[in-house]
Amino acid sequence: MDFTPTERDSFYRLVAERRDMRHFTPGAQVAPEVLQRLLTAARQAPSVGMMEPTRFIRITNAALREQLYAHVQAERQRTAETMGERREAFLQLRVEGIREAAELLVAVLAPDDGTVFGRRTLPQEMALASLACAIQNLWLAARVENLGLGWVSFFDPQVVGDLLRVPAGARPMAMLCVGPVPDFYSKPMLEKTGWRQRADRPLCYDNAWPADAP
Amino acid sequence: MDFTPTERDSFYRLVAERRDMRHFTPGAQVAPEVLQRLLTAARQAPSVGMMEPTRFIRITNAALREQLYAHVQAERQRTAETMGERREAFLQLRVEGIREAAELLVAVLAPDDGTVFGRRTLPQEMALASLACAIQNLWLAARVENLGLGWVSFFDPQVVGDLLRVPAGARPMAMLCVGPVPDFYSKPMLEKTGWRQRADRPLCYDNAWPADAP
Repeated sequence: MDFTPTERDSFYRLVAERRDMRHFTPGAQVAPEVLQRLLTAARQAPSVGMMEPTRFIRITNAALREQLYAHVQAERQRTAETMGERREAFLQLRVEGIREAAELLVAVLAPDDGTVFGRRTLPQEMALASLACAIQNLWLAARVENLGLGWVSFFDPQVVGDLLRVPAGARPMAMLCVGPVPDFYSKPMLEKTGWRQRADRPLCYDNAWPADAP
Repeated sequence: MDFTPTERDSFYRLVAERRDMRHFTPGAQVAPEVLQRLLTAARQAPSVGMMEPTRFIRITNAALREQLYAHVQAERQRTAETMGERREAFLQLRVEGIREAAELLVAVLAPDDGTVFGRRTLPQEMALASLACAIQNLWLAARVENLGLGWVSFFDPQVVGDLLRVPAGARPMAMLCVGPVPDFYSKPMLEKTGWRQRADRPLCYDNAWPADAP
C-alpha cells in the first residue's frame, strides 16, 4: 500500500528533528513495550546477505553501568589531550548521558559468520554498515516515540568487550543512551555550542568526483 | 512537537515495508524534487563529530552506467565461484537492478578529514557508520516516496573509484539503485527465494553476552 503525502511529510519531519542527545531526564523510564518496538525496528533493518550481525546488550546492572561510565570519562580525557588549543572548549561539551539515560544499550557486531553474499570484496565494511543501518532505524524509532538517543563512541572496544564478556571476534561499536529528554536540541548540539558547523558543500556530483572538490 | 501515535504507527509500517529491491520499472523516472528530498534526508543523518563523510555520485552518463553494470556482473561471477554447491542457486538470484533503475547513485566515503571527536579509538568504523546512517535515511525516504532502493555491494571499490575518479583515500561503499518498482517484495527477496531465512534468535541480552550465544 502506498504511503500518502501526509505520511511522507511526517517522516521528513522525523528525519529533520532526530538529534544525537546527551541530556536525559534522570529517573525516567522506557516502558517495556516501547523498548520492544525500538528493538523490532532495529531487527527489520537491512543486513548484507541477511547476516544480521547486530546484537544489543542492555545494561540493567547499576555497577556495570558505572564501570562503563568511568571508562567513557577516561576516554574523554584521552581525547581532550589530542585537542591542543581546543582542549578546554572540548571539555565543556557533554559527550554522553550514560548515568541519566533511562536505558543503556551497547550495540555489538557479532563474530563474522562467513557470509560471502554481497561482501566478498568488503567483508568488514558491509557487516558494520548493517549494524549502523539497524542503529539508524532504532534512532528514528526512538524519536517517533518522543525519546532521545545518543550514540556514544568514546570508548575502547576491547575494554568494553571485556566488561560485557563478548566472544572473540565480536566488537562493541556503540553505546546507545535512550530515554525521555527535557527537550530536543533545536539543532545538532555541536552546532548549537559553536563546536562545528554543518558543511556548506554539494552532497552530490554527476558522474565523477570533481577535481577540485574536498 | 511530539509525534502522535498515528505518526508512530506509520513510521513502523515504513520500517516493516522497506525492502532491498533488485527489480525496477524500466524507463521510469524520479522527479528532480523527489531526488532532492532523498538527498536532503541523507544529509540530515547523524555523522560522528559532524564530519559528514558521505558523498553521492549520480550516474547520468549511459556509457558509464554500462561500465559499472559490466563490473558488477564480473564480481557476481567471482562471488559465484566461491559458492561451491550453491553456485547455481546463487546465479538464479538477481543481485542488482543497475540497468533498469531510474537512478543510480554511488555512495562514496570521502577522504578522512582528521576529525578526532568521537572517533579516536574507532576512526574508520565511525566514518563508515556515518555513511551507512545516511544511506538508511535515504532508503526509508525512498520507500515513503513509494520508490524502491537496492544497495548493491558486488564491486571492487578500487575499480569503481577509478571509474568515478575519486581522490586518494575516498572509497565507494554502495551502488544505490533507486526508482519506481512494479511492486515491493512481500518479504526480503533472499527469504522469498529460499536463499536464507531470518535468524530466530534473541537480539538483546542483559549485561553480558551469554556464554552459549552465537
